[in-house]
Formats: sequence, structure tokens, C-alpha cells
Amino acid sequence: MGQLRTPSAGPPAASRAGRRIYDLLRGQMADGTLPSGARLPSTRALAADLGVSRTTVTAVYEQLAAEGFIATSAGRAARVATQLAPREAPRPIRRARMAPPLSTFGRRVEKMVMSALPAAEPCRIDFLYGAVASRDFPALVWRRAYQAALLRHQQSLYYAPPEGDASLRRALQGYLARARGLGCDAEQIVVVHGSQQAIDLCARVLLDPGDAFVFEDPGYLMARRCFEATGARLLAVPVDGQGLDTARLPQVDSVRLAFVTPSHQFPLGGMLPMGRRQALLHWASQHRAWVIEDDYDGEFRYGQRPIDALQSIDSEGRVIYVGTFSKALSPQLRLGYLVLPPELVPVFRQAKRLTDRHAPVLEQRALASLIDSGAYERHVRRARRENERRRTALLDAIARYLPADARVVGTAAGLHVVLWLPFLKQQDEPALVAAARARGVGVYPVSPLFAGAPPRTRARPAGLILGYASLTVDQIRQGVRTLAAVTAGLQAAAR
Amino acid sequence: MGQLRTPSAGPPAASRAGRRIYDLLRGQMADGTLPSGARLPSTRALAADLGVSRTTVTAVYEQLAAEGFIATSAGRAARVATQLAPREAPRPIRRARMAPPLSTFGRRVEKMVMSALPAAEPCRIDFLYGAVASRDFPALVWRRAYQAALLRHQQSLYYAPPEGDASLRRALQGYLARARGLGCDAEQIVVVHGSQQAIDLCARVLLDPGDAFVFEDPGYLMARRCFEATGARLLAVPVDGQGLDTARLPQVDSVRLAFVTPSHQFPLGGMLPMGRRQALLHWASQHRAWVIEDDYDGEFRYGQRPIDALQSIDSEGRVIYVGTFSKALSPQLRLGYLVLPPELVPVFRQAKRLTDRHAPVLEQRALASLIDSGAYERHVRRARRENERRRTALLDAIARYLPADARVVGTAAGLHVVLWLPFLKQQDEPALVAAARARGVGVYPVSPLFAGAPPRTRARPAGLILGYASLTVDQIRQGVRTLAAVTAGLQAAAR
Repeated sequence: MGQLRTPSAGPPAASRAGRRIYDLLRGQMADGTLPSGARLPSTRALAADLGVSRTTVTAVYEQLAAEGFIATSAGRAARVATQLAPREAPRPIRRARMAPPLSTFGRRVEKMVMSALPAAEPCRIDFLYGAVASRDFPALVWRRAYQAALLRHQQSLYYAPPEGDASLRRALQGYLARARGLGCDAEQIVVVHGSQQAIDLCARVLLDPGDAFVFEDPGYLMARRCFEATGARLLAVPVDGQGLDTARLPQVDSVRLAFVTPSHQFPLGGMLPMGRRQALLHWASQHRAWVIEDDYDGEFRYGQRPIDALQSIDSEGRVIYVGTFSKALSPQLRLGYLVLPPELVPVFRQAKRLTDRHAPVLEQRALASLIDSGAYERHVRRARRENERRRTALLDAIARYLPADARVVGTAAGLHVVLWLPFLKQQDEPALVAAARARGVGVYPVSPLFAGAPPRTRARPAGLILGYASLTVDQIRQGVRTLAAVTAGLQAAAR
Repeated sequence: MGQLRTPSAGPPAASRAGRRIYDLLRGQMADGTLPSGARLPSTRALAADLGVSRTTVTAVYEQLAAEGFIATSAGRAARVATQLAPREAPRPIRRARMAPPLSTFGRRVEKMVMSALPAAEPCRIDFLYGAVASRDFPALVWRRAYQAALLRHQQSLYYAPPEGDASLRRALQGYLARARGLGCDAEQIVVVHGSQQAIDLCARVLLDPGDAFVFEDPGYLMARRCFEATGARLLAVPVDGQGLDTARLPQVDSVRLAFVTPSHQFPLGGMLPMGRRQALLHWASQHRAWVIEDDYDGEFRYGQRPIDALQSIDSEGRVIYVGTFSKALSPQLRLGYLVLPPELVPVFRQAKRLTDRHAPVLEQRALASLIDSGAYERHVRRARRENERRRTALLDAIARYLPADARVVGTAAGLHVVLWLPFLKQQDEPALVAAARARGVGVYPVSPLFAGAPPRTRARPAGLILGYASLTVDQIRQGVRTLAAVTAGLQAAAR
């Protein structure tokens, strides 16, 4: 039961005098001076008492009546409303055991361990995977495109279609055909708030509690959490240097989807070869499972062309392709998209509409014009060159400063590598991360991306994910040197 | 099982010659000329045959090997990979009964009837509720604020906190205290993609299948659909001229939340008086239910000050306040926020992060600077004046052109009214809407917002929701005149 608010916290009044009177009366109702049912002074009398115009008092009474604090009727005295609860002493918000419960989903999510967000104190040199350099962002063309979208505003602003702006979907269709060998209809595309929303929508629309899902081990934690949050069961399938080991796909009938990163396995970096792609699709067909292809950094392949999307060889309409602009533009834009098998289009449009109606229109249109003008692909080529330089610097520095048995994997593509340190054990990862951080270098352990502990017989070495897209070549060199020193220190301590 | 792609659809190659060779070999693998296991010509031989450099051919072989189409090893002839599936005739994507199933949520959502999105052919004069005039949008200050946010980009772009930008949450805290009498901590605020996402998050985090929820009847359809999509049970509670009839709140223990629009009931426009507010909170306390307060247009109250938020009198931490910028700025921005009871903050942050990580950073910062500079509240005052003129024009035109027994409700606030036409029956609504549309005027029936059919004994008259925020005063007058003519025609036909 709520108590009346104290006068001092009142909302702004039409006039200063009106506000004072409103607060006075609310205060008197709150402290019992004007109890429930009590008669208020007439507007004429109160105006005279307080030396204000009668109009001011009348406005306050109307406000109080509209809010239900007093009852008025023509020709009768106004009275304090009788339904008001009796006055109670103010008290702080209780957070008692009687609080209403959460849903099963809410309870699962509340307990979930996700990767920590970067500390408020950033590292001097941070190999944070997922971060990109601000100077790589095409700020000038983006600003112009955004401004142009503002000027093209139609007369009336209303909710846009859930599947996204038609201009962006058309632009994406052309881009996907050129860059990813992916032929689709613009109608199959649904624009979303980054790949995270794409994956969450898939989890909601495709998984029930008790269903099973296949997931790469190690794999992308924030995707795994989406599927786990539905109450579905994880079937972890090991990954080797060529991505998902399709020979070990489980022959389980309750499996409803497989989540894969075939262009560049996250985090280990393998590219799924054609034979495994076909095996995966065959398995999906046999088990009536959907396949989610997360192409999170497909733009960044060095030396070789980006490999065609898995969806391009899907003849049964089972593959859901997920694309994002978080790597090529900025993770803070929150723009991504789904390319859906035709039969999933209606339900995903409805689900997107229910979830948040649609992606922001101005940024969608800005992006569409960037793609249409060719500026986006020019930008991607430039960003690819920048990141190739960073990658070269990273590999050189690792070869130069770290012991010879340090092993780097996943170097052919993307914006990160995994560094295995066979002379340290997985249990050393926290100490390694802390020691590097103490010297201003942020590195991140690979273990949390594994679904389970390794078998006793095959203990894993310590491993780090090193993201390099936000660093300069100098920072990369310095960072690896520091890491080498820290590693050597730990190694010495272990002996 | 996938077939190999046809040559013509190949991805862009490093060079024109390289692409031609790549396509040639992929084509020969697809049509059986180069079957599984077959030996490929040496790079030297093929280069000579085709009159290209050996480097070009080597690059193509490396690409094909990386993609898993061929197997290469030093000093041996390259061969077509043996795991490749045998050639199959190309066929269109099958959409067969063997498609994997949807989740229970997916099946519910797929069948859901939502309001139709406006037609591609817009009406000349559209009383579309939710649309706002583009010329009311503060484009210049918004552009400047957005540009300033772009320039303030930090060095490294990474995912931002799920609860939203700290500057925006601080700005909102001040705004809510000034404008809505709502004292909260910035930590209680979570920024979301419009009120739709706020409501969807509440549905997911608070409702399980089989739980019950209280909902205003009539009420806001897109919120009801969110709750229904979880599998929860609707308990419709009637609304009168003062909003939710709290005397009719169900005494059911499985009820987990109530969704209300206390500042301005949607669609009928009543303001929930203090006594009912207290009764609602008392009921929520007794039944361990959350209360969601959707303050969708609290900025637009004419004559009287906006009433304080329901959350301001909540002493038990049960009320979740939902705010939006869809009405005061633009529905296409997709910016809104939740003010949560402290104990719900952790789970909503986690859920927001899982759902789509966070709202776009640049637009959050642009909005924060608009609020901090006072430009936002100046803009709201201007928009309120504009809408007050529109409202006056609408009420005048209705009084002038429509029969005397036409009744308008909900005129004290907001950006819409409900027009009851007692001389027409609810069943006449579709004909009325169609006839108006045929004359270029868009109007929308009120019936779909009711949870059920009225009792036989109390048939409802025809009702329309008239939104006016996107129209000029002239359009409003003309539109009402046309509507009057259409109404008279239907009335005559009915006699």
C-alpha cells in the first residue's frame, strides 16, 4: 500500500503559485491535516487566504480531482477522496521474500555466467576480442549517409516493417551475392540488432525446453547461452583444425539445431571443408535439424578469397545464415541480419515485430546507401589491409618473443588468433591473465569457451584468445613482448 | 545433401583469369568430368594449357584446397576430395513436410494476429495512431548531437554495457524526476529498443506458460501479444472512463503481473485516480504480482500537468515503469527504457545482454546530450503545443461535422482520441473503415483492442481510434468531413 508523496518531490506545476498550493494540499493530505473525506476550503476562500488568483486555485483543484485525490462536483464543496488509503509512515522499498517470482527463463538467465565486460579501467594494450579500432570506422561517410537519411525522412514517421528497410535488404542481397557467393531473395532477409539478436530469435523460435542442440566445443559462449536459456540441452561436438568434427555429430533424434561457424571457427579458426559441409547438411536432413551458420567475420580472410557461405550449397532450406556489421563497422551500431529459408520468413518477421518492432530506420538507410555507393566494400578492403598488417605484426612478434613451442592457430582469417602455451597448464590461465593485466596488457583465456573440462588423460595447455583489431602495430609488438616476459616469469615459477 | 554450385554463380576471384579457372574446375567437379578422387592436372600443365601464369593456377588450387574441394600435398598431384557427395541434378529448395519443427513459442507467434502494418499505398489523410509528423522531429539538433557523439568516439569500439550508456541513464534520471515525479536511481534504468522490447523482456523474465496476467480491456494489442506468446493466460479486466476498474481485479493466485496504462489508458484515455492506484498496488501486494506501468505518452497532457507516475507511490518495489521516445521524437528511433525495482535490475541486465547486447551507442549519446542541454524538454513543449492545436482542430471538426450523438473520449491527453458512433454497430466498423479508405482517409477500428466479444445484451457501438499527431490542422478538418460523409452514407444505408 503506497503512502502519499511528500510535498517537496511534487511535479512541476503550471505556475509557481499553483505548485506551492498543490504541494501544500498534498502535504496536508499526507500528514492527516486533511483526512479522507474532509472538506476543502472553497476556491474563493483559499485564493483570498493565500493571496493568489482564484483561477490558480481552481486549476490546482482540477489537477487534484483529475488525479483522484479530491472529489469535486458543481455547487458542492470539494472533499478529500474517500478511497485514499490511510496515512502510513514513509518506509524504504522492501525487498522481501514476498517479491513476485521470476519465470523459468528469468531464473536461468539470472544465474548465467557470461564473460565479464571489460573493466572500467581499460588496459593500456588490450587484446580484447570483438573490439575494433575507432580510427578504422568510416566516420565521414557514415555521418554523411546518416544525415542524408535524415533529410529523406518521409512526411509521417511510423513503425517500419519488422524485416527491415527494403533499401537495406536489396543492398544486402547484392552484397551477399558479390562477397559471399550467397544467392538469396531480399525477402529472405531480416535485419536485426546484431548477430546476438539473430541467435536469440533462432533460440526462441526453434528450441523448446528439453530439445537438444549441437554446439562447437570450444565455441562462441554468448550463442551457447542463448540456447541454454531456453532450457534446451547442449550436445558439445569437438572441433579440430578444420572446424566441427562432423564424424562425431550425435545421432540423437531430439536434436533441433546445430550452431556452426564454418567460414572461421570461433575461436580456433578452422575453415570447414566442403566434405564436412556436405556431411553436416546430410546429418541435418536425417535428423530434421536446422543449421545456424554464424558468419561473424567472413569479410576478413587473408591471402585467399572469403569462402562461400554454407547456405550457398543448402538445397533443402535448412541453413539460417547470420551476418553482422560488428566487425567491419562497429559493434556499437548493433546491426546484423538473418538470411532465412523461405518457410521461416513469416514466423521470424512476426517474432521480430513482437520483440522490438524493427531496427532503427536512419541507421539502416545510412548503411544501405554505404553499400549501394560502393563505399562499404571500399571500406572493407581498407579495413582488411589494416588488419592484415596487424596480424603480420602479431605473428612476427609471437615468433620473435615467445618460446618456440608457443603455437598460434586460426591465422588465415578473422580478427583474432588463439595462442597455445604448451609449457603452461590450463590452470595457469587466471594467473597469466592477472599478471599481464598488472603490466597493462589485457589477454583473455580460452578455457571458458569449452563446454566441459578436458578428459584427465589429455589436460589442455594454457590458451589465450588474442584479438588485434583495435590495436596499432606498435601496441601489438609491445603487448606481445610484455606477454612473453609474463609468461617466462610464470614458467620459471612453475619449475 | 547439397549439390555443387553452378559455375556461373561463383564468388569474385582474386583475378579475372583466376576466377575463370576456379569456375571451370568447380563446374567439372559438379558435372562429373572430375569425379571424386580424380587427379587434377599439374599447376604447370594447366597454366600452359590455359595460357595463364602458374601463380594464378596455384592460387586457385590453394583456394579449392582451403575450401575442401581438392586435396593437395607437397610433391603429389592434387585430387578431387573423396568425401564430396556424388553429383545430383540441381533442384529448387524443397519446403517439405520434413522441415524441422518450430518451438512452442514459434508456433504461437506464427499464428498470431497482429494489427496490419499500413498499406504500401498510404492514405491521403491517415488518422494512424502511433505516427508522428516528420516536421515535428528536431532534425537539426538531433543531427548535431549525433555528429558530436561520432566525434567523441573512444579509441576502441567494443560492446557497451547492457543497461545502456551511463550518460543517458543519468540524463533520464533527472528528466524523470522533473517531468514525471519519479525519483529513481540511474542504476534502476535499462535502456531498450522502444517500449515493445521493454514489454517483451518483462514477458520473458516474469511469465511462464500457464501463469495468468491482468490486462486492460480494451488495451494495447502489441503488449497483450507479448504476454500471450509466453503461453500465459489472459485475465481481461474492464476499463471505464477512469481506466482499469480495480474493483474487478480477479482474486486468482496464479496471476503474475498486471499491465496498465495509468497516465492515459490506451485506447480509451482515462487517467487512473489515486484511489484506484492504491487499490491496484494493494492487490499486487496480496497476490504477489508485478505491475507494468506503460507510460507511452505521458508527455502529452493538455491543460493539466502530466500526472505523476504510478511507480512514484510504489513502496514495495513491484512497479516496472516503461518509457519511450516513440511519441516525443520518432517511433523509428527505437529508443525506450525501463525503470526497474532494484531487485529486478540484475536479471534484466543479463536478459538484455543475451537478447541483443545493448542499444546503439551513438543514438543513446545523442539523446543524452539533447536531454542534458534542455533541448529535449524545449522540443517536448513545442510538440505539445503543436499537438494541442491538432487536438482542438479534431474536436472542433467532430463537433461541427458529425452527428450530435457521436461521442469522443480520452481527449485530456495523448495523441489520439476514441470516437464512438452510437448510430452504427460494431459490426459496421469494417465497412466504415473501407469506405473511408476508398475516399483517401485512413481510420482504425477499436474492436480489435477488446479481448473478447461484448455480452449479447450490451452490443458495442462502432468505435474508431483517431490518431492526429502526423496530420496538419487542415488535413484533420478535411479528414473529419470525409468521415462524416462516409458515416452518413452508412447510416442511410442501414435505415
